[in-house]
Parts: sequence; C-alpha cells; structure tokens
Amino acid sequence: MQKSPSASSLGPGGLDLAQAFFKPIQSCDPPSSTKRHTKISVIGVGNVGMAIAQTILTQDLADELALVDAKSDKLRGEMLDLQHAAAFLPRTKINASVDYSVTAGSDLCIVTAGARQNPGESRLNLLQRNVALFSNIIPPLAKYSPDSILLIVSNPVDVLTYVSWKLSGFPSNRVIGSGTNLDSSRFRFLIADHLDVNAQDVQAFIVGEHGDSSVALWSSISIGGVPVLSFLKNQQIAYEKQTLENIHKAVVESAYEVISLKGYTSWAIGYSVANLARSLLRDQRKIHPVSVLAKGFYGIDGGEVFLSLPAQLGRGGVLGVTNIHLTDEEVQRLRKSAETILEVQSQLGL
Amino acid sequence: MQKSPSASSLGPGGLDLAQAFFKPIQSCDPPSSTKRHTKISVIGVGNVGMAIAQTILTQDLADELALVDAKSDKLRGEMLDLQHAAAFLPRTKINASVDYSVTAGSDLCIVTAGARQNPGESRLNLLQRNVALFSNIIPPLAKYSPDSILLIVSNPVDVLTYVSWKLSGFPSNRVIGSGTNLDSSRFRFLIADHLDVNAQDVQAFIVGEHGDSSVALWSSISIGGVPVLSFLKNQQIAYEKQTLENIHKAVVESAYEVISLKGYTSWAIGYSVANLARSLLRDQRKIHPVSVLAKGFYGIDGGEVFLSLPAQLGRGGVLGVTNIHLTDEEVQRLRKSAETILEVQSQLGL
Amino acid sequence: MQKSPSASSLGPGGLDLAQAFFKPIQSCDPPSSTKRHTKISVIGVGNVGMAIAQTILTQDLADELALVDAKSDKLRGEMLDLQHAAAFLPRTKINASVDYSVTAGSDLCIVTAGARQNPGESRLNLLQRNVALFSNIIPPLAKYSPDSILLIVSNPVDVLTYVSWKLSGFPSNRVIGSGTNLDSSRFRFLIADHLDVNAQDVQAFIVGEHGDSSVALWSSISIGGVPVLSFLKNQQIAYEKQTLENIHKAVVESAYEVISLKGYTSWAIGYSVANLARSLLRDQRKIHPVSVLAKGFYGIDGGEVFLSLPAQLGRGGVLGVTNIHLTDEEVQRLRKSAETILEVQSQLGL
Amino acid sequence: MQKSPSASSLGPGGLDLAQAFFKPIQSCDPPSSTKRHTKISVIGVGNVGMAIAQTILTQDLADELALVDAKSDKLRGEMLDLQHAAAFLPRTKINASVDYSVTAGSDLCIVTAGARQNPGESRLNLLQRNVALFSNIIPPLAKYSPDSILLIVSNPVDVLTYVSWKLSGFPSNRVIGSGTNLDSSRFRFLIADHLDVNAQDVQAFIVGEHGDSSVALWSSISIGGVPVLSFLKNQQIAYEKQTLENIHKAVVESAYEVISLKGYTSWAIGYSVANLARSLLRDQRKIHPVSVLAKGFYGIDGGEVFLSLPAQLGRGGVLGVTNIHLTDEEVQRLRKSAETILEVQSQLGL
Repeated sequence: MQKSPSASSLGPGGLDLAQAFFKPIQSCDPPSSTKRHTKISVIGVGNVGMAIAQTILTQDLADELALVDAKSDKLRGEMLDLQHAAAFLPRTKINASVDYSVTAGSDLCIVTAGARQNPGESRLNLLQRNVALFSNIIPPLAKYSPDSILLIVSNPVDVLTYVSWKLSGFPSNRVIGSGTNLDSSRFRFLIADHLDVNAQDVQAFIVGEHGDSSVALWSSISIGGVPVLSFLKNQQIAYEKQTLENIHKAVVESAYEVISLKGYTSWAIGYSVANLARSLLRDQRKIHPVSVLAKGFYGIDGGEVFLSLPAQLGRGGVLGVTNIHLTDEEVQRLRKSAETILEVQSQLGL
Repeated sequence: MQKSPSASSLGPGGLDLAQAFFKPIQSCDPPSSTKRHTKISVIGVGNVGMAIAQTILTQDLADELALVDAKSDKLRGEMLDLQHAAAFLPRTKINASVDYSVTAGSDLCIVTAGARQNPGESRLNLLQRNVALFSNIIPPLAKYSPDSILLIVSNPVDVLTYVSWKLSGFPSNRVIGSGTNLDSSRFRFLIADHLDVNAQDVQAFIVGEHGDSSVALWSSISIGGVPVLSFLKNQQIAYEKQTLENIHKAVVESAYEVISLKGYTSWAIGYSVANLARSLLRDQRKIHPVSVLAKGFYGIDGGEVFLSLPAQLGRGGVLGVTNIHLTDEEVQRLRKSAETILEVQSQLGL
Repeated sequence: MQKSPSASSLGPGGLDLAQAFFKPIQSCDPPSSTKRHTKISVIGVGNVGMAIAQTILTQDLADELALVDAKSDKLRGEMLDLQHAAAFLPRTKINASVDYSVTAGSDLCIVTAGARQNPGESRLNLLQRNVALFSNIIPPLAKYSPDSILLIVSNPVDVLTYVSWKLSGFPSNRVIGSGTNLDSSRFRFLIADHLDVNAQDVQAFIVGEHGDSSVALWSSISIGGVPVLSFLKNQQIAYEKQTLENIHKAVVESAYEVISLKGYTSWAIGYSVANLARSLLRDQRKIHPVSVLAKGFYGIDGGEVFLSLPAQLGRGGVLGVTNIHLTDEEVQRLRKSAETILEVQSQLGL
Repeated sequence: MQKSPSASSLGPGGLDLAQAFFKPIQSCDPPSSTKRHTKISVIGVGNVGMAIAQTILTQDLADELALVDAKSDKLRGEMLDLQHAAAFLPRTKINASVDYSVTAGSDLCIVTAGARQNPGESRLNLLQRNVALFSNIIPPLAKYSPDSILLIVSNPVDVLTYVSWKLSGFPSNRVIGSGTNLDSSRFRFLIADHLDVNAQDVQAFIVGEHGDSSVALWSSISIGGVPVLSFLKNQQIAYEKQTLENIHKAVVESAYEVISLKGYTSWAIGYSVANLARSLLRDQRKIHPVSVLAKGFYGIDGGEVFLSLPAQLGRGGVLGVTNIHLTDEEVQRLRKSAETILEVQSQLGL
C-alpha cells in the first residue's frame, strides 16, 4: 500500500517522466534503503489514533509515519486523507498496512487499539480480550522494531503497559503508558482558566492509576513558579480541603463529560501523546506524569506494577523518576492503587 | 458557555486565589474589552469543521477561536476536548455557543455547516434546503462581524459562496469559497508521489467548478520551477493526452474514494482551509485556486457566478486574479461550468 | 526606502508585467491602506537590535517589521540582508528608514539604541547622554504609534524605562523594560545544565534592578513543579547559603563573561525579547520578570520607580504583578534597589 | 567545554541535588552514550557561521549543535550566548571546542571558515591559503563523522567544495556547496518585491559559478506556477532582453551592496543554509540550486568540477540533478564557467 494505486497507474508517459527528470551525479553512494530518519508507527486508526497521527504530522515530528489497523478500508481511507494534504505540510512519508512489516525500523510505536466493552461484559472479561488483542500486536512490533520505544494509550492503560512490557521483552525504560499526562493537562487547564493565566505557566501533577483513583498532588501546584499552597498560607487565605477535592473531581469527571457529550475523546489525547512523542524523540529531557514501572518507588514493592509518576523523558525513553515528597496520605493512595492493579494482573495469568 | 461550569464551581478558595494572586500596577489603562487580536469562527462542528478548528489551533493561527453549531451537546464536547489540550499549545481563547453573538468581532468566519442529502432527494431540493440553512447563518455572521472575511467550505461550494455573498451584502473580495484548493493539492500529491519529489515543489492548478467538471490546467504543471509540458517536448518524450486525463480523473475520484473508504473526508480539507486562513490573516499574498466572483474573466459574462481561479489572497481577502493563459478548450470548459452554475442559481429565486 | 531601488529599476518590461499579471475582481472594496496586521518596530540596528529583529522574523511574530537607526548605510545593509531571505520565510514586509514615520501604526516598539560609555566618562554623564538620545526617540514613536506598547532594552534599563514612560505620556501598563527576563533565563539554564533537565522545566526568578544588585528569589526555584528548597528540606539535604549565592553570582558574571569573550551579548537578549514580544502581541498572559512601575509593591512607595517584578503580559501590556511572598531580606534588597534608582532619577531633572 | 565551568562549580549542595532528584527505574537499559539524534557541526563562528548556527537553533533543526573555531575566546563567548537562551527554546545540546572531537557523530558539517584577502594579495594566493586551511579542517571532520554530509559555505565555494570532496574521500553525493542557493533567493525576492507577491510563489533559478559569472535561467521564472516568459508572449507584451539582464545584474550587485553598506552579509546566508540543512536532514527531497559534481551534465566533461545545478536534496545528500532544458547560450556560459574553475583547480596541485 506504499504507493497509491492511482499514482502508479499514471501510465507510460508518467513513467518516462520519472526516469527522465532526474539524473544521478557521478561518484556517488550506491542507492541504499538504510537511511537514518525518524519513524513513528500508530497502531489503531480510530478517533484517538487518528488525532495522534494528524497532530504528529502537523507538528512535523516524524520523517515517516506508518499506520496499522485490522480494518483495511478505513485504514486506506485515513492514509489517503492525510496524504492529500502533502502540499500544505513538510514532507512526511505516510504508509499504511494491515501487515506489521510496514512498521519496521520505527523509533516509536504508539498503540491505541483496544476492544470495546460489550453490553453486560465484565471489566475482567474485557481486559482479557484486550490482552489477547495485545498478544497479536506487541510481539510483531517488537520483532520489526527491536530498538523502538513503546507508548501505550489503550485503556486500562496501566495494566496494558505492564502487559506490553511482558510481551515485548523490552527493558522497562522503553515501555511507557500515556497514563495521567492528559489528566494533568486537564488539571492545569481548569486552574489556568479560573485564574485567566496561560496553562503553560501552571504546574500541577496528577499521578497514580489513570482513572477514578488517580492522585492529585496538591503540593505540586505552582503558578508562574509560585507554589500555591504556601502562597495561600503566606497570604493567610484559608482554603477548604473540599475545594481542592472538587477541582480533582472536576478533572476526573471531565473525561466522562466529553464522552457523554461527543461520544469519545480525541483532540486532547492527540495533543497529549504528540507532546510525549516530541520529548522522547527530540531528547527534550522534560518531566511528564506517565505510566512507568513503579516498583521500588514510594514503598511500592509488592510486585511489578506500572503507575503514573513524574518521569523525565528523552531519546532513551524513561531517564528517571522525580524523587518528590508526598504526604503520607498521598503515599497510601498510591500504594492502594498499586495493590488493586496487581490483583487484576494476577488474574490475567501472564 | 465562555467559562466552563466546572471551572467556575471551584468554590470560594478558588475565587480568593484569583483575586489575591495578581495586583494591577498604578497609572495604567482602564480595563478594556476592545483588544486587538486575531479571531476565527468556525460554523459547524462536524468532521470537516473540527479538522479545520483543530489544525488552526495546532498551527497557532488565531488568538481566539469561536465554534457555533445547532447541536449544543456535541458543540460543548468538542470545545472541552480542545480546551483540555491547553497545556500543550500556545494560549488560544476557545469559546462555543449555539448563539452567533459568540462570533462577534471575527476576522475570518469559516462556514462548514450543510444539510445532508436525504434518500431520493433531488440535488435541487438539497440545495434549496442548504440555502434556507445559510439564510440563518450568514446574516448573523455579517451582523456580528461586519468587517470579516467569509470563507465557505460547505458544498456545493460555488453556489453557496454566491449565496453567502448575496446574503451578507459584503464586497466580493471578502467572500471566498474553498473551491479547488484541495483538488489542486491532491493533483500535486499524485504527481509528487509518482516522481518521489516534495509536493511543495510541484505547481499545478485545477480550476473551475469544484467537483466532477473541474478543469485541470496542464500548462500550469511545473516541478521545481521546470514546466513539465515543455520539458517533455524538449526531451522529445511523447505523452498521451489520455495519460494526463487519467491523472485528472484520479484527482476527481480520490475524494469519492476516501468517502467510500472512511465515510467522509476531513484531514486534507482541514489542512487546506487552515492554509487559506494563514494566507488571508497573515497577509501572505500567496496565489491559491479558490472560488471567487468570476464575472469578467475568460469571457465569463453571462452573470454573477463564483468559480475557482488562481487568486492572490491577503489581509484584504481576494487581492486579484492571476491573468493566466488558457487554451481555447480550457476556456470553453470554464464557460460551460459557469453556465451550469448560473442555471442552478436561477432556480433558487434569490 | 520602502522599495529597494534595484527592484524599482527593473524597467518598463517589469512594470508591464506587474500591471498585466493580476486583475481585480468586480464589486470589491476600494483599495485601502488601513489593513489590520501586526507591526513591530525596532529602534537601533546594532548587534542587539538585529538579533531581536532576526529572531522576530524567524519566529514569524509580525506581518510588518520597521527598522530605524541614525546610520543610514548600516540600516539599509541590514534591511537588504533580511529581505534577501524572503524565499525562505513566511512573508513579512520589512522597511527601514532614518525617519520615524516608517514606524507609524506599530503594535510594539522595541528600543535598543543607546550611547556607549566614553573613556573616563562618569555613569551619570553617560546616562544624561542617553536621556538626551531618548528625548529624540520616544516622542516620535509615541506620536506615530499612540496605541503601541513600548519595550525598552537599552541600559540602564530600569531608569530608561522610567524615562520612556515620562517622555511618552503612555499609561504605565504600556511601557515595559526587558529587565531581568534574560537574567532569569541564565539562572534557569545554569540550574538545568547542572541537573541535565530541560530549562523549560526549571522555574526561577531574578527580580529587582537589572544588573549587579538584582535579587534572586530562592523560594521561586522549582524543577518540574517541585519546589527545590522544600525538596532539599524533605530529603534532609543540607545546603549552604553560600552555594545558592554562588549560583546567583555566576548569573551576574555570565553577562560580563560573554562581553569579555566576544565583545558584546546578542543572541540570548534577542531570544529573550522575541519571547516577550510573543507574550504581548499574541495575548499569551504569561508571567515574565520584567521592569514595570513598582510603586506600591512590597513597600516601595518612595516614588515612581521601575523594577523587574513577575508580571503577567498580554495584548494590553502589563496585566498585573504576581503577588508573591518575599522574605524580609528580599524585600529589603528590593527597597534598597528602588532607593538607588530613585536617587539617580532625581539627578536627571526630568 | 561541554559543561560550563560556572555550572560545575555550583558546589556540593548542587551535586547532592543532582543525585537526589532523579532515580532510575528498575529493569532498564544500561546507560548508554550512543543515542540516535540529529547533530550539526558548524566550523567557523564569524558572522556567517553564527547566523547559520542561530537560525538552526531557532528553527529547531538539530538535537545537538557543535561549534569549532581556532579563536577559543570568541568561540566560548558565542556558545555561552546561545546557551543562555535555553529557557526560550526547545532543548538543544550546544557544545564548542577548538578540538574537532567535539564534532564526532555529526549528521551534517557546515564549513564557514576561510582566510581573508590581504592587501595586494592575488586571488590565487588567497585560494592557496584557503586550501591549506581546509587541509586542517576537512580530514578531521571526515575522521570524526565518516557518514556525515559536508556543506561548504566558504568562498570561492565551487573550488572549495571540490577541494573538500578530494580531502574527505567522501562520495560526491555527500559533498555540497551552498552555491547559488542564496543568489536564487535574492532573484526571487527582487521579482516578488516588484510584483508584491510572496517570494515563495516565485520560482527562479540562478545556476553555474557562485559569483559574477552565474547564469540566470530565464525560462525557469514562474509566478504561482505561471511561466513568465510564455505569459508575456501570450499577452503580447514585448520585453527587452536588457531588462532581464538588469535583474540578474541587480542580483549579482546586491551581495556587493550589502557588504559595502554593513561590511559583510550574514542573515540571508544564515537562512539559506538552514533551509538546505532542513531539506537534507529531514529528507525533504526538495530541489535547490547548489554546487554539485557537474561532470557529465550539459556537456561539461573536461574534468571534475563543482557548479550549482538544480539538485534534489534529501537524507542521502544529493539525490539527483534536474535534467532541465537550457538554451544554447546558457549551456555555453555554463561550460565557460566550468573551464575557468578547472583552470584554477589545475594550479592548486591537488
């Protein structure tokens, strides 16, 4: 599917043109297919996968983009729709195939594929179907791109990142879940919108399990570098713990709100993942709350579990985890999340 | 809907914070709401409208973005989904409402709303329903943003651009249809893909009516500045007229192909319209094939008709039309398109 | 000087081409010169002024750029050198003149002009010469662009920003000095370089007088949102106050170091000012440490003095000052700076 | 010089912080220094070299930038000045050294170093000194980055590109001279400025020897895809050959004009070379007029000579040369340029 059939059927006049228009110079390298460039693969071309692919394209993060999905018609339609914009964008080679060989040599593989919950289906049953799905996705990705970084977006993201780590055999620094990176962005937006400041001036982390049990780190909130809790204290402004909990609740609910209103979320997760892709591939060494192997942090030592923690990301994947101070309550909540996930994992029989 | 309810319900602690955190300096201007910035409104938040809105946001083309749609739930969901990405993007104020007052003071209004064809419905009947729809869209847009540029994307784009011109009472330079700008990009991609060159190095225009009767200007094709027809002639390479016609046919079919595969087109039209928005708002004075008032060009003098011609776009809208040489056959085809459109328009009773 | 003479001497063939190539469409607006776009003027085309102008151009922050300098040859040379890159950049109209009328209608005027210290000249004498220079610069800028924002870069920046405020008659929110924005960036770089993190993840403010007496706000340092002082305390890591003072000393010395090594500073101040220009003109509402009217903040009430404080910048200029908590020692140092500057100002006889 | 001494002297508190702040995750890759990223080296930090380095930094074209110059003070000053802007830019690692080992593993090496003409010195003598200089530059570059592309900017660029090819032992596709890429941009600006169109809509090539004997290809001029010569013919507009020659003369003179006015050229060559760097490193496959091994093209077969021809550039360097049609006169002028250069080369005794 690398050349669009319509292009290759341009006929003999077209072929003559291609051969006549350029001539090689003398004494040059033999033509080679092993050129160094940046390649990203996106698995799953639903609303989330395509929002990610399109944002990566607009932000010019890759020299080559490969799309994989089981639905060949939808896949080809999305590829053509992106390709038709070629005149408006820096050149990116865009391929698509149902066959994973199209992903060969990727620097980053982003997995958005996932089964949908059937009516009446238990969460465990859904998860088991997703694990079965991933056992068909991760091994070929690891085989065709043994040096790549795996970035898992499908839900439940923490468990599926663990599953991907196991299935790939990759070192843990190269298997990452998008985790609470988007939750933290929503948190920052709500605070910034309220104060009418730029959300990029707001620092605030949500960590832990992606979902209802995520943990908001109140002491991490700062605006323009000013820690908010100590600001309030210094200004002798009383704040209700309930107020802060309401903000966190609004963050958790905002995902459900978008889904109830438009049926799914797409744009924000697209920007969130493109943001991670930039930090990883351009070696930005920035700190993001993403799902990483959490064993050994904050007293989490019951087993191998992935949870979102503030991690420094670069070309090598996870470069380290920020050793921040948590309150006892925050530590307890993190550990409880870890135990819940571990219990789910134990039922998977991996 | 300007403040998200969840943000405004942050409670008294939040309000105290907002008031305490910033203090105004002395001797400053009184607070004012008449700040100069760039505002774009998008009417219709379907697949096309949202691909446009999201690309405008990623490319940082506006300081304020307003969305309007009749479906309030979908509208609010799309607004929130874009807003949640605030931490990953330069700050853009994003509002949404079913009320057109949200568009007040726009520099550019992009209309993507349109009725869908009912089973068995005639094209004329569909068009009449769209004209009725536009009579509820264009007058409020013109009222709230009397100095704006109108950019029409809904189909049939040429007739609806004419309708918008009439309904708005705007001078013709400020009413533009997206026309064959995307068709031309597809044309350039097909040629570039075949020769493995950058599509931005390929110049090629498709003009006339957007759709099956569009006119490919063969003499306009150049690659890296080299006119292809004269290149072939100089290289004594024979080409079949049929080959060229096949390329044009592939362009026309490619829109249908994407629709048959994924159900609609979105990404390429999104990039295409964002590209026009940049030329218009940043005064780029670039040449684009877009639908403009064609009366007086190439012997089109039967009436007021909008057709795509290579037009120079800038902050003032359409700055002029390129006075290119067309073959007699190309002129005939253009005039025939004009007559067809005029006949349709005569049935609308505007 | 708006059209390069070489271009206008292209001869009659050229003129015919210009008139023949584009034709206006019918029923359009009359040609008008009052188009809305973003215009920035840079006064002074020395190393600093040109680094600013070129960065603004590369980052596509303006639709029109005007350069003013007293040296007409150097001025024209710099203008042509920028114009010759037109094919590699989005279109920006670039003009230059010794006459301030070229700045008419600017949204932002950036002043980099300044006298150099003569051998044996006292600082006061130098300042008096600079005040005389500004009395020829600021009034014409204010006259030709009465709604613009003035951004002063020339040194001593705090006093000259005060002088510009007085000479312009502008409200205080539209007169800003680049102040310690660059000092703070150097501070952030030194910390980031040491920890091998992204400098954009480091928050740290230097405020007060730009120069040797600037005040480093230790409590403002955070990395990835983690406040460093409380981190060290929680980790029970002892730190010497001397260590922190050494970092601040390294920041103050780094400007002198660059000047001793290459003779002047240019690139970093260029990026710093372009960064302020973006926050101002694109209404980013970001917080920057810049020189603002400080009267009434932190007990500074002895008179009208400009000092760097963390200010929120947007399309209206200074939107507010962050009401952060300073230690008693920091407040004392700020007040002392204010007194020193006020004493200098009292000698100027404005 | 990789760590600034000021940063490494932050003291024991600083070191404790670095070790305490991040902790590695378990089961990860061993730390490695062989990470894949994009590295550009610039040799020579004069006005041209620094304009190139700074534009590359602003346009975010590299993950690592290495600067080399014989003057260690100037070199360190320029490195620090760029580093101090870290907070305003995406993270790029910036190193500098008088030792070529700092360039190890570069993807692209840009050479701007060159001797200046002494009073009364013959051009041949100057060239021989430059060849001696290059014999100290090119071999270490080739040794430390055997897979890199060499981009030569120093003048006389065509001869020095040939010299670099010989000294490096590289295949010819990986040795390129900036050639007439900038001349062509000036050509496009003069035409665009005259017609008030966007220079990116103007196609026009100047080829051959960079300098007074360059060859303007009149038939290559098109505006918005419309070939100008045939447009004039179709519009029955007479044009004087003298007019076209005047435009070319203005291009050739514009470099001298800038030098006479400001003493050197810098910004435009900076943008021009950054533009080539993007096409090469991001595999853009765009067509640029650059100096390539011209043997075998247009009857140039007297020897190995580098001249500017429209070449397609990508990650592999020169991918091919556009096989355009030249008039007999244009071919004669190209061949004459080739002979002149070959004669100079024969005197170098390489």
